[in-house]
Amino acid sequence: MKVNGIPYRSIWTTPEGRVQIIDQTRLPHEFVIVDLATMDQAAIAIRDMWVRGAPLIGATAAWGMALAMAEDASDAGLARAYDALMATRPTAVNLRWALEDVRARLAPLAPSARQDAASARAAAICDEDVEINRRIGEQGVALIEAIAARKSGPVNILTHCNAGWLATVDWGTATSPIYHAVERGIDVHVWVDETRPRNQGAHLTAWEMAGHGIPHHLIVDNAGGHLMQHGQVDMVIVGTDRTTARGDVCNKIGTYLKALAAHDNGVPFYVALPSPTIDWRVQDGVREIPIEERSGDEVSFVQGRDAAGQVGMVRISPDATPGANPAFDVTPARLVTGLITERGVAPATAAGLAAMFPDQAPL
Amino acid sequence: MKVNGIPYRSIWTTPEGRVQIIDQTRLPHEFVIVDLATMDQAAIAIRDMWVRGAPLIGATAAWGMALAMAEDASDAGLARAYDALMATRPTAVNLRWALEDVRARLAPLAPSARQDAASARAAAICDEDVEINRRIGEQGVALIEAIAARKSGPVNILTHCNAGWLATVDWGTATSPIYHAVERGIDVHVWVDETRPRNQGAHLTAWEMAGHGIPHHLIVDNAGGHLMQHGQVDMVIVGTDRTTARGDVCNKIGTYLKALAAHDNGVPFYVALPSPTIDWRVQDGVREIPIEERSGDEVSFVQGRDAAGQVGMVRISPDATPGANPAFDVTPARLVTGLITERGVAPATAAGLAAMFPDQAPL
Repeated sequence: MKVNGIPYRSIWTTPEGRVQIIDQTRLPHEFVIVDLATMDQAAIAIRDMWVRGAPLIGATAAWGMALAMAEDASDAGLARAYDALMATRPTAVNLRWALEDVRARLAPLAPSARQDAASARAAAICDEDVEINRRIGEQGVALIEAIAARKSGPVNILTHCNAGWLATVDWGTATSPIYHAVERGIDVHVWVDETRPRNQGAHLTAWEMAGHGIPHHLIVDNAGGHLMQHGQVDMVIVGTDRTTARGDVCNKIGTYLKALAAHDNGVPFYVALPSPTIDWRVQDGVREIPIEERSGDEVSFVQGRDAAGQVGMVRISPDATPGANPAFDVTPARLVTGLITERGVAPATAAGLAAMFPDQAPL
Repeated sequence: MKVNGIPYRSIWTTPEGRVQIIDQTRLPHEFVIVDLATMDQAAIAIRDMWVRGAPLIGATAAWGMALAMAEDASDAGLARAYDALMATRPTAVNLRWALEDVRARLAPLAPSARQDAASARAAAICDEDVEINRRIGEQGVALIEAIAARKSGPVNILTHCNAGWLATVDWGTATSPIYHAVERGIDVHVWVDETRPRNQGAHLTAWEMAGHGIPHHLIVDNAGGHLMQHGQVDMVIVGTDRTTARGDVCNKIGTYLKALAAHDNGVPFYVALPSPTIDWRVQDGVREIPIEERSGDEVSFVQGRDAAGQVGMVRISPDATPGANPAFDVTPARLVTGLITERGVAPATAAGLAAMFPDQAPL
């Protein structure tokens, strides 16, 4: 999407063939484009979270394999690249998927053919991600259009965390319907939850909205319930890290609270997701999905730009106070109005998901 | 309550008669005691929020009147003190109440008698506040004891914002049952919501807990729902700025979201309040109570201590992103398990409140 009027993806190649990304750790205070010239640089970009978001991690890893093949296209080089990239964020499902996909395609080829094949596959993985998110947007924008048709003034959409184009290659998931609405000239306004502790809403989603020129306000995570009580939210759209076969949604901590408020106030609560994030083996998300406990320091410290323009961390709590930091929560399907997928909007039920994805759902 | 083992109130007089407070704007990073030697200093302490919390503002204003009488006990001096102190935070109900109370007692007296009378009344206002909060604690601790009796391990209590001793003269409202539980040897653990945007939980409640030696963790405002889903919260206790005749509760933004989560998970949700915060003229809090919109900068900036030990503000969002900042929300009575008052635990209903306060409720 756009940054100051110029269209970007979150990873791309220049006409000269250089792979470039945005160093997302510098956002929103600095817009820094980084060249990934070597496989090692791609690994650092993933490990140090210059790129984040499952689809973008996968895409960056695929480009890392292509860069590795320019350095050493032997079988040993292929194995080494796979291992090095896999070690960057070992629990990322998309990372493993992308690396296994590229490795499987390269292994049968002669070393001399591997670099071109890897580059072609990395480019295709990026294009496939853009396409799936474009389709999510096309499905979701109909929901926004329907609201716009029955009210005056902007459609007020609340989102949590960053399920935006910065987390994917383009469009984003939760944001794709919003960008599509803007393209169709629909008047939208976005409430951006700051999304403590890591503030991905304040750092990334707000920056996306500002860059694309979409009217928005940053709000604290506490505010959404009040706004819904007073008719100031027409719909909620969030992303998800993992969705169960019956439609429970595991997403960034605090999503569940917004879903409760939406339910209590009759505000539709949608979750946008590419179908690969459906985990067909899991039913009851609250009972079955283990929730990552991250460092309490993420709670005790906040990153921002000081009066001198320097970006750093400040401690908000007493030194003697420990932080506790569950990183995700599970929103039960009963609170979810619908799941916006690349094929359509599915009810958040086992039957609804299975009917939309009969080719994926277990018998 | 205690700071590093030493008992404090939030405002007190030394044996030599000096009025002292804690500069709460410096917490939690510095514990600074300030002398209020003049009425002007008392006014600054209120205006610049060195003291905050309705009861403590009232108590400080009363001491400000006493200090003024030492400077000029004439009728003109009395009027000037009233006006100067009232101008510090004109919308604070307790400020007006305390100033009117003291002025009405001093006006009939000879100027020579006013200083002593004002000091005696200020001291009495403080003692009365301590006593009402002590009683709230005695009522509320029974609820904690009942939970402790039927489980092993600590009673996990979640609280939002700061309804602690720093907001009153001692004990606090929401924290008073907790301090009483500690005095009775009950094993408690407190989940402290950081309470964005102003982070009174991180700055003040966490500091109270650390100072008094109460086991606690700081959590982001997003985390409570997840903790409740997983049985990690036994009860919620919050304070309130204003409670309606039917038991709707206006409190710091985000309280409503915690009440929804408590209700969804069968966790008891209590509100602790001195009966003067009941507004008998108001029924439907969501419709009738106007919510203060504060500066969006409170959302865009966070205060903390940097790596060099300096306390300052950092900006978390893009310069182009405005913040929206509703400061309070209303929790409907249907989500409130009970109202812990100085007389007992009342149901959050018009009949329940009227039965407990027949002398206050309108016919």
